Amino acid sequence: MEFDLVIVGAGSGGYEAGLYAYRRGMKVAFVELSPETVGGSCLNRGCIPSKYMRHGAYLLEKLSKAQNYGIKVEKLSLDLRTLAEGRDQVVLTIRENFKKFAQKLGIPIFYGRGILKDKNTVYVEGSDITLKTRYILLATGSSCADLKDLPADGKRIFNTDQIWSLREFPRRMLIVGGGAVGVEFAYIFRMYGVDVVLVELLDRLLPSPDIPEESSRYLARKLKRLGVDVRLKAKVTGYSEEDGRLKVSISDGSVVEVDCILLGVGRKPNTEGIGLEEVGVEKDSRGFVKVNEYCQTSVENIYACGDITSPLMLAHKSMYEGKVAVSHMLEDRDNVRNDKLMPKIIYSAYEVASVGLTEDQAEDEGYDCAVGVVSFMSNPKAMDDGEDEGFVRLVVDKQTGNILGCHIVGPHAGELIHQVVHLMKANIRVDFLASSIFSHPSLSESIVQCAMEVHYGPISWVKRG
Amino acid sequence: MEFDLVIVGAGSGGYEAGLYAYRRGMKVAFVELSPETVGGSCLNRGCIPSKYMRHGAYLLEKLSKAQNYGIKVEKLSLDLRTLAEGRDQVVLTIRENFKKFAQKLGIPIFYGRGILKDKNTVYVEGSDITLKTRYILLATGSSCADLKDLPADGKRIFNTDQIWSLREFPRRMLIVGGGAVGVEFAYIFRMYGVDVVLVELLDRLLPSPDIPEESSRYLARKLKRLGVDVRLKAKVTGYSEEDGRLKVSISDGSVVEVDCILLGVGRKPNTEGIGLEEVGVEKDSRGFVKVNEYCQTSVENIYACGDITSPLMLAHKSMYEGKVAVSHMLEDRDNVRNDKLMPKIIYSAYEVASVGLTEDQAEDEGYDCAVGVVSFMSNPKAMDDGEDEGFVRLVVDKQTGNILGCHIVGPHAGELIHQVVHLMKANIRVDFLASSIFSHPSLSESIVQCAMEVHYGPISWVKRG
Repeated sequence: MEFDLVIVGAGSGGYEAGLYAYRRGMKVAFVELSPETVGGSCLNRGCIPSKYMRHGAYLLEKLSKAQNYGIKVEKLSLDLRTLAEGRDQVVLTIRENFKKFAQKLGIPIFYGRGILKDKNTVYVEGSDITLKTRYILLATGSSCADLKDLPADGKRIFNTDQIWSLREFPRRMLIVGGGAVGVEFAYIFRMYGVDVVLVELLDRLLPSPDIPEESSRYLARKLKRLGVDVRLKAKVTGYSEEDGRLKVSISDGSVVEVDCILLGVGRKPNTEGIGLEEVGVEKDSRGFVKVNEYCQTSVENIYACGDITSPLMLAHKSMYEGKVAVSHMLEDRDNVRNDKLMPKIIYSAYEVASVGLTEDQAEDEGYDCAVGVVSFMSNPKAMDDGEDEGFVRLVVDKQTGNILGCHIVGPHAGELIHQVVHLMKANIRVDFLASSIFSHPSLSESIVQCAMEVHYGPISWVKRG
Repeated sequence: MEFDLVIVGAGSGGYEAGLYAYRRGMKVAFVELSPETVGGSCLNRGCIPSKYMRHGAYLLEKLSKAQNYGIKVEKLSLDLRTLAEGRDQVVLTIRENFKKFAQKLGIPIFYGRGILKDKNTVYVEGSDITLKTRYILLATGSSCADLKDLPADGKRIFNTDQIWSLREFPRRMLIVGGGAVGVEFAYIFRMYGVDVVLVELLDRLLPSPDIPEESSRYLARKLKRLGVDVRLKAKVTGYSEEDGRLKVSISDGSVVEVDCILLGVGRKPNTEGIGLEEVGVEKDSRGFVKVNEYCQTSVENIYACGDITSPLMLAHKSMYEGKVAVSHMLEDRDNVRNDKLMPKIIYSAYEVASVGLTEDQAEDEGYDCAVGVVSFMSNPKAMDDGEDEGFVRLVVDKQTGNILGCHIVGPHAGELIHQVVHLMKANIRVDFLASSIFSHPSLSESIVQCAMEVHYGPISWVKRG
């Protein structure tokens, strides 16, 4: 069978690229491991099921303040089985819709491992089908990394592929890793009443250079307030099982007893055993596929997107890169891959959103920055909603007024940040944002307030001379 | 005392303009009726207290679906007194912060009615102070309009100045007017268990040409589903009081018995008795102050903003116009008043947001339009949040690709629409939006999906030929 484009991997990135290529008139086919893995890690074992559980946690937090709205909740009972059923139903619905939609459009999905035979040939192992194609897009995603000393068994020690099978809340759990996965699950389980110990090797949660320390600290304080036992600069040094519970030794000298452990410790790109070496697709030392700004690999008709192109493993990075790749196949050079412009959004006890440079990064790159910070504390909509914690930070190049970065912590940060993403992508300066239109009351107002702080200088509680 | 700028009215518009003028280096003073009215109608008797109550209603709706998240609420009790206390506390906090902030900055507030004596003189009645000033900004806002046949008494028949005194939920109420006020309060009271009859004279709710019929219909269906008795093309023809209840006759021939009536029937500009005629500030036949695109009145150093400049009575219109006026005083011509670019946002059983032209308006103006519609039904974040109703509509000029309007109904529409507001203000075309970056999963994704529908043509469940 002959196609314009064969996409190896029907996860978020592959799927989005496929639909986009279809829109642009290409004849497309997907290759995906099995009917159960359509949608990839994000849909089946990542952002979609975790955001469902996180919404439940968020509801519980809202409920704890419902009395301020004249709503008295007399009795509450919590149940992981029902939560998991609702979650799994959403995942199933999206996955089946994916498949039905592809079918209606006439885009075939071939099931099995896709292996490159030559630069125009993909062999689908399992289905034993060979596909000929002009272009190939590699979108094979990533897998959980293992910890040698803490092997996941899916019974007491879970990785993020396995945690979904849990059907009863543990009384006490330990989470290894204070990155996105760790802080999201710490919030989820804590709000559902679990005692959570969160262990992070470095000296802050969300220890990414793309996320300002202020965001991490702010989140850590809230998690602690909610009762999460946050241990920084710490690691698990050993464990033993006793009477069905785990005794875990931590490098700070303490020993905690828990019912289970969740590992949130990173992922590795799926770039082994799919014929990349045979057709000459180059990888770096960590196993990532080398791509240029148009997501083209070292073989010019073979492209790659998503988790296999860089350690920034975000579904929407993959979706964007998939579209960049397809556009390039169609000789459109307008869009290029850009990890910096990717919003990084974590849904924990707050929504934590970042795009572009932090103040530290901007200074390292030699910018003379103006930084504005505005709290949600005085935002009327945030006050009305009982969610007046958090802030908007803007990092701006003093010389040009260009917006270098934006960092929002607080209510709906994950949606709000898009306003700044678009303006950054369009190279629109902070003076425009400072004089744009914002509805009142809205959370978005804090963005314009912040832009005004940067553009006109801070207005403060201190009387001017 | 001599000032650069005296602002008559410290409501949302006046206050924002005052802070902005201060930032820009002007010596500013406010004139406001009394310490209790600082913040104006929006803060004290409008959007801020109603959004607080609406958040309670929204929480109750979320609670009704909490079981899907493994949260079983066994017993719930509702109480208007506590709701009202929380609400009034937020209003008070914002009002007092307003005053403290002005004081710290050294911006005086003179209490009393501001009356123009000549084009550089404002007399503050009550305080008996005369202020000399280079510029004057009129920001006097609006008042509830009366219905001759349904006189508000604050006991059984409430207008939107009076409804805040209610301390117990009525069993059954009638709301006159299906505009923003009517649909917001219908949702609030309904969710708190009140039987609500909503009477609207015209054939749709939110009967504004700026809001597409689709949005109105969608909202009406939901309100009905929640149990609101929506009566379109109907009006109150009479009423009588019997045994402490009101028997209200409706033009459809029915008679309903209710405990109280809320009037949501429009407002009139506050432009009487403040000396406008004496100094030559021109008004139109409806009492609105005539202004040019820079908010300048017929007297060149006197400006006006907000509810007194046009029937579009939105706090943020006033805030924006106030800044346009101050900018013009400082010889900045970049921004002009623009009712079309003002987002219109209603917080009812859905958030209903509109900016720019509807399809009907665009056609009337001679545009050849492309319209995209994308439902939240298939948006993964909306599904995770259990709020997958609503849609994004984009109205685009086929010839240029310019975005003419955007209309969102559904979760957080009031925040989401800002993404499009900024791009419209920056004259950025739909092709940019179609290829911008959106996080996954996010509600914002529905905006890019919609932009792609418009730009590349609809992708549908029908197989292409």
